[in-house]
Amino acid sequence: MEIKEYIALNKERFLEELFSLIRIPSISAKQEYKQQMTHCAERWKEILLSSGAQWASVMPTQGNPVVYAEKLINPAAPTVLVYGHYDVMPPEPLELWQSDPFEPVISNGRIYARGADDDKGQAMTQVKGFETALQLGLLRCNVKFIIEGEEEIGSPSLEAFCREHRELLKADIILVSDTSMVSPDVPSLTTGLRGLAYWEIELTGPNRDLHSGHFGGAVANPIHTLCQLLSGIIDSNGRITIPGFYDDVEDLSLAERDMIARVPFDEAQYKAAIGVDQLQGEAGYSTLERNSCRPTFDICGIWGGYTGQGAKTILPSKAFAKVSCRLVPHQDHKKIEKLFADHIVRIAPPSVKVKVTVLHGGQGYVCPINLPAYKAAEEAMHTAFGVSPLAVRRGGSIPIISSFEEILGIKTVLMGFGLEQNAIHSPNESFPLDYFYKGIETVAGFYKAY
Amino acid sequence: MEIKEYIALNKERFLEELFSLIRIPSISAKQEYKQQMTHCAERWKEILLSSGAQWASVMPTQGNPVVYAEKLINPAAPTVLVYGHYDVMPPEPLELWQSDPFEPVISNGRIYARGADDDKGQAMTQVKGFETALQLGLLRCNVKFIIEGEEEIGSPSLEAFCREHRELLKADIILVSDTSMVSPDVPSLTTGLRGLAYWEIELTGPNRDLHSGHFGGAVANPIHTLCQLLSGIIDSNGRITIPGFYDDVEDLSLAERDMIARVPFDEAQYKAAIGVDQLQGEAGYSTLERNSCRPTFDICGIWGGYTGQGAKTILPSKAFAKVSCRLVPHQDHKKIEKLFADHIVRIAPPSVKVKVTVLHGGQGYVCPINLPAYKAAEEAMHTAFGVSPLAVRRGGSIPIISSFEEILGIKTVLMGFGLEQNAIHSPNESFPLDYFYKGIETVAGFYKAY
Repeated sequence: MEIKEYIALNKERFLEELFSLIRIPSISAKQEYKQQMTHCAERWKEILLSSGAQWASVMPTQGNPVVYAEKLINPAAPTVLVYGHYDVMPPEPLELWQSDPFEPVISNGRIYARGADDDKGQAMTQVKGFETALQLGLLRCNVKFIIEGEEEIGSPSLEAFCREHRELLKADIILVSDTSMVSPDVPSLTTGLRGLAYWEIELTGPNRDLHSGHFGGAVANPIHTLCQLLSGIIDSNGRITIPGFYDDVEDLSLAERDMIARVPFDEAQYKAAIGVDQLQGEAGYSTLERNSCRPTFDICGIWGGYTGQGAKTILPSKAFAKVSCRLVPHQDHKKIEKLFADHIVRIAPPSVKVKVTVLHGGQGYVCPINLPAYKAAEEAMHTAFGVSPLAVRRGGSIPIISSFEEILGIKTVLMGFGLEQNAIHSPNESFPLDYFYKGIETVAGFYKAY
Repeated sequence: MEIKEYIALNKERFLEELFSLIRIPSISAKQEYKQQMTHCAERWKEILLSSGAQWASVMPTQGNPVVYAEKLINPAAPTVLVYGHYDVMPPEPLELWQSDPFEPVISNGRIYARGADDDKGQAMTQVKGFETALQLGLLRCNVKFIIEGEEEIGSPSLEAFCREHRELLKADIILVSDTSMVSPDVPSLTTGLRGLAYWEIELTGPNRDLHSGHFGGAVANPIHTLCQLLSGIIDSNGRITIPGFYDDVEDLSLAERDMIARVPFDEAQYKAAIGVDQLQGEAGYSTLERNSCRPTFDICGIWGGYTGQGAKTILPSKAFAKVSCRLVPHQDHKKIEKLFADHIVRIAPPSVKVKVTVLHGGQGYVCPINLPAYKAAEEAMHTAFGVSPLAVRRGGSIPIISSFEEILGIKTVLMGFGLEQNAIHSPNESFPLDYFYKGIETVAGFYKAY
């Protein structure tokens, strides 16, 4: 039987299995979903076993459990370690969803739900591709799976888990479906990822909210001070002003810039899709360079003072922000974390107290394009999509990828089937059914070629 | 019977009547408290009638009702119009309260509750002072009361109410207890108030929250833009940069600056009370000048992006702020409202959309110190507190005071019994029992002297 035929025969079941995972709201950022995390891990274990794993286990970590599974065929054959994550981003703001984020709906050929793409949908392409290859007798390597539950909060427990289970996780290559292709018509493999540093800032002015009429003008307003501190982090050229921030940033080579310039990009379409009239960023770089190969400073959230209905005239006691930097390969997230925290504390005026907390971080990553697994992925994608994939660096971060290299000594091939319009991390996240099934076909093809 | 004696005989009942008002959470800023507003107005009507008013009515307005009451003694005698408000500020942040904000608790000689001072406690000094004077046969003028329910949201319906009921509200002087004394030992009468302008700003960048890894660095972040806009409104000298903002601000005369310098002020104590290490404000002015006679720009609240637990890496779609200006006499709030909105729209970059909404506003006010009613207030305060009150300008705003002058043609004497440490608008608002009873004594004394 052909790969395509097996997938066509089982397409309804594959979808039902995915839906059963989506229906479990496994939100790692919120403490109150602890039980749902275990529930989701147990469901993955069942699916991995029914997909052909000979052994599977929900293994404890310092945080949410990791699902491990394996199918060992031949000790002499190479081993593939598949990584995915079962946790999802919080669905807020809920009022912008057109359907329940945790009840998948199919509309316009797309699955709408939180996790439809990131990463329940994509991880399922790996598991169902594995099942397909196994059932059709195409599997000639050993396969191990780890599906973790803390990727969206920076995988705080996975490094320790990897150190503890080095032997169990031994493999020749890691395979991950958690990235996007450059456009619907242009399949691509991700060969670079940005690193990440993420902080929370707390500024305290007066010890309580004050009446702005009695104190306004005479006492520093911590929201105003926070605005001053944050607005100064980027200068008028879009450059980050933290001293030492660019020290380890490698200049883009002409060859790289040339390759980026070849990626199809329609600025008008890009702006229309996100509804902005004008783009903005670091001077001297193109949009694709800015959002993939250059480091950034982003304010992810801000809050302080009165935010309810109507007008309350206060001079607030506190102001908070969640901020992050996307880092490029060679920038060390630990070094940047400290540089930023020290900088903020140094430039804050004595009229406020400052606290900077690191919430998570990870290194960037580069994948060589001459690895046998990369070649197999390239071939499988060519077969499934009818065109050879581009090798591109992307702007997102999967901090654990560089940790895998550091701890386990294994490179990762990033074979993602996402698309920009899937709106991951946003309301109405979706995943096209086409790409779900083509993803499964590509993964099965990978095992055939590898 | 002496005034003090009558108060001593009735002190428990006065307190119980106040508590019955405090227990009704009359929060004007929140729509869901609509019913409580009417409930509170009805309770005031009962109290006004039992205190000696011959007629009282809960009168409809475009918003929350106004309680009107009157005691007309002699058409030839002068008429006093007492103004107060029965609405209170929202109690948030609730976690900082040491007791239920709407269940008064007496501790350390203070009443702790939202509205204990502002303005239920203070308005009760007026009503119980009136009762005392009436019962002791000291009342020689007509008295009218209006207690409104929208002061904390800028009295949006009261101007129309005053225009409609000009005849009913006819009076020679308005008496208000809704301000503070300069310190516990230094009684004072407020002869100036700052005006107010209050806006909400909404910035929209992309049409949805974006993944910061895929768009960060290439698309304007509306929180960052908001921080830039707001931080630029005050320059490094503490001056407001809105073009034309200072045009109508009258320079402080040497005589005024000299009077302000005579107000007792202990900077170390001031800083310790609010827990800040350093004060900050407009260069060239003292703290007391900054917080009473100079205009200010205050950020009352800010919000946008992800503000929940943990780390969510987004480039947000929207950012909001609530901001206000305290204005000094001669600055027109309508003019300033437009100047600011135009300025923000003008300086915002084309990468974001801006919406500025005026939430409320009002003019500043100055009271001449040679009015007969001012003299009577001065005498009554001297009798109750043992020392003659200072005439001071304060930093707060009661926008309706200048509207009374404009619409009804009546000046107001601001005879307040609040103290800075009462923490009005803040958690754990309180009102010392002493000042509650001394306030009643002063008001009764006013009627005796007037």
